[in-house]
Amino acid sequence: MKSFHPPQRTLMGPGPSDVNPRILEALSRPTIGHLDPAFITMMDEMKELLQYAFQTKNTITMPVSAPGSAGMETCFVNLVEPGDKIIVCQNGVFGARMKENVERCGAEAIMVEDTWGTVVDANKLEDTLKANRDATIVAFVHAETSTGVCSDVKTLVEITHRYDCLAIVDAVTSLGGIPLHVDEWQIDAIYSGTQKCLSCMPGLSPVSFSEAAVDKIKTRKHKVQSWFMDLNLVMGYWGSGGKRAYHHTAPINALYGLHEGLLILREEGLEQAWARHSLHYQALRTGIEAMGLSYVVEESARLPQLNAIRIPEGINDAAVRQQLLEQYHLEIGAGLGEMAGKVWRIGLMGYASNPRNVLFCLGALDNVLTSMDAAIDTGRAVAAASNILFPGE
Amino acid sequence: MKSFHPPQRTLMGPGPSDVNPRILEALSRPTIGHLDPAFITMMDEMKELLQYAFQTKNTITMPVSAPGSAGMETCFVNLVEPGDKIIVCQNGVFGARMKENVERCGAEAIMVEDTWGTVVDANKLEDTLKANRDATIVAFVHAETSTGVCSDVKTLVEITHRYDCLAIVDAVTSLGGIPLHVDEWQIDAIYSGTQKCLSCMPGLSPVSFSEAAVDKIKTRKHKVQSWFMDLNLVMGYWGSGGKRAYHHTAPINALYGLHEGLLILREEGLEQAWARHSLHYQALRTGIEAMGLSYVVEESARLPQLNAIRIPEGINDAAVRQQLLEQYHLEIGAGLGEMAGKVWRIGLMGYASNPRNVLFCLGALDNVLTSMDAAIDTGRAVAAASNILFPGE
Repeated sequence: MKSFHPPQRTLMGPGPSDVNPRILEALSRPTIGHLDPAFITMMDEMKELLQYAFQTKNTITMPVSAPGSAGMETCFVNLVEPGDKIIVCQNGVFGARMKENVERCGAEAIMVEDTWGTVVDANKLEDTLKANRDATIVAFVHAETSTGVCSDVKTLVEITHRYDCLAIVDAVTSLGGIPLHVDEWQIDAIYSGTQKCLSCMPGLSPVSFSEAAVDKIKTRKHKVQSWFMDLNLVMGYWGSGGKRAYHHTAPINALYGLHEGLLILREEGLEQAWARHSLHYQALRTGIEAMGLSYVVEESARLPQLNAIRIPEGINDAAVRQQLLEQYHLEIGAGLGEMAGKVWRIGLMGYASNPRNVLFCLGALDNVLTSMDAAIDTGRAVAAASNILFPGE
Repeated sequence: MKSFHPPQRTLMGPGPSDVNPRILEALSRPTIGHLDPAFITMMDEMKELLQYAFQTKNTITMPVSAPGSAGMETCFVNLVEPGDKIIVCQNGVFGARMKENVERCGAEAIMVEDTWGTVVDANKLEDTLKANRDATIVAFVHAETSTGVCSDVKTLVEITHRYDCLAIVDAVTSLGGIPLHVDEWQIDAIYSGTQKCLSCMPGLSPVSFSEAAVDKIKTRKHKVQSWFMDLNLVMGYWGSGGKRAYHHTAPINALYGLHEGLLILREEGLEQAWARHSLHYQALRTGIEAMGLSYVVEESARLPQLNAIRIPEGINDAAVRQQLLEQYHLEIGAGLGEMAGKVWRIGLMGYASNPRNVLFCLGALDNVLTSMDAAIDTGRAVAAASNILFPGE
């Protein structure tokens, strides 16, 4: 057995996305202690950078020391109490995971179901809230990674608050890729991941909690069922100023990477990052449509960073992805849940949202589909996308 | 705000310990997907390497994607059911954390208390088991990081099994540093950390479960309260062979580091690593005693990798550690819990267990204590330790 030297892939699936080399380098900086004054300075900067990324002034804004699923669970175990009634909007895989979280907290999940690939329906949510006046929380996904649809967080939170509920929002795939305004939209609890539009390695989950959410956590009737995720304890380490109390040993090097990734985002500027994601989506879409392929999601609700494309009739899903991986070292995503075998998910996330990846992916997909005699309009995708990327040339 | 470039410390606290540069380099290798065939090959190797480190053939042997505290919680939430009676042996900080875990699972914790700095008393455990015939699990710490004491796992597990209970063992600080034989000692569930004697960055928790433990997990009456830590789901991703089902996105780069760290351990050999930890402890101890300082734990039960040293009368704990950190870039640990202010914890873990660190630490501590007019026998520590390290010279 030898050292593991991974192949150099181009990551255009649903995440992890291509990691910026600056971030990879940051990971390898010397490890220091989790209570070292130098590290604590870095933690303070990290909070400020996350506040910028989330567009919030929330004091409780930090990375959970585990992947996005643990960020989700952190929100639920801290805000849900046994016996509570929680409304969960489901329009893809991650709503189902929220339901699991609610039920494992001993609470009841009232589901608002929407067809996969469509947005969360605000009217349905309002009807459900009217019929469940004792509900305490509404949870939904901003950017559904399984389908590539973007729901209207601002409206959904407004409705949620009208019925005196708190809003938990899944922003795993949205943070850094599309507009997200935690304070302006008055989101109460939000979690994200590092391996999507922040272009960091997977393994951390940025979260943020409003004052109302923190009040609820501080006045719980039952202890939080998870010791590791109990924010009453975690806040003692990540809370601002003063003494940092040891809770668990922070994943030091991973945090170096996240700090660097957030710094890169701030250097570029959020608006510029959002515009970049939009531009490269436009280019990819033009190429995809030039081939004659189509999207799952209607145009107005599409995520620029996650393109769910219908697999053409008669084409072997796995064979295409395998050929892309083996010949081109290009990873695109399979369908998930009820979308399995029906769609490919092409990510243009963070650092990976660039002209090279757009043209490379279109060229490779065109070649592979042509080699499989797919009924596509071949040879036009790259040129069509190039016209969007480089209009003057 | 700029990129964070940490100072280069020597880490001789309770962990994180100095990270081998090979591991730091491994962290910065290109990220690939968590379902990439190349990554899955690496996962298979990882399991084999962890089985070697734990000395087990357990199929369910893998790293939890979060720090040691989450490894602890993974053991408890999967094996404990509401209403169960669990015996927890406490002789330091981490027994108290186990109690928290038990209670947050809705179970009752029966405590077996021993004085901090002493081993878990086997007779007390047996008496408690006799008095609680309906107990289902016994949990205890192998290497108590807060005091530096090593308990007799083999005997404690034997007693545990005699009363038809399963044994959960905390091996956060022991794995790779002192003898640990999961199969021979018939441990049912064990968790460790990566930032101690494996010398990796913090953030992962290797775990292993016996067949009896896996049976118990598969026949639970209640769902595991944590979705993220539910082994029924995690095993679908980490279980051997066949299709790997997506559960959460694995922390890819951190796993590169752990793979490299385990490979380094296998190259050296477990017995050789244990002997190295023992040798450098002997050298440190000789130096510490030559200064006139003393240990908390009696010699027969001391951990070579975690040396809890009494702070001399009249000496300012924090001032000494601050001077070591600022002038020497040397981190040693403060006391934790009821040991706070009374002891320093000097780690000699993994890569950090080497002659340079022993002599550097003794020299620095001698200098700093002398500058503070401590009543120590100055100037002899380094020479005394050198005689152990280099007996022929």
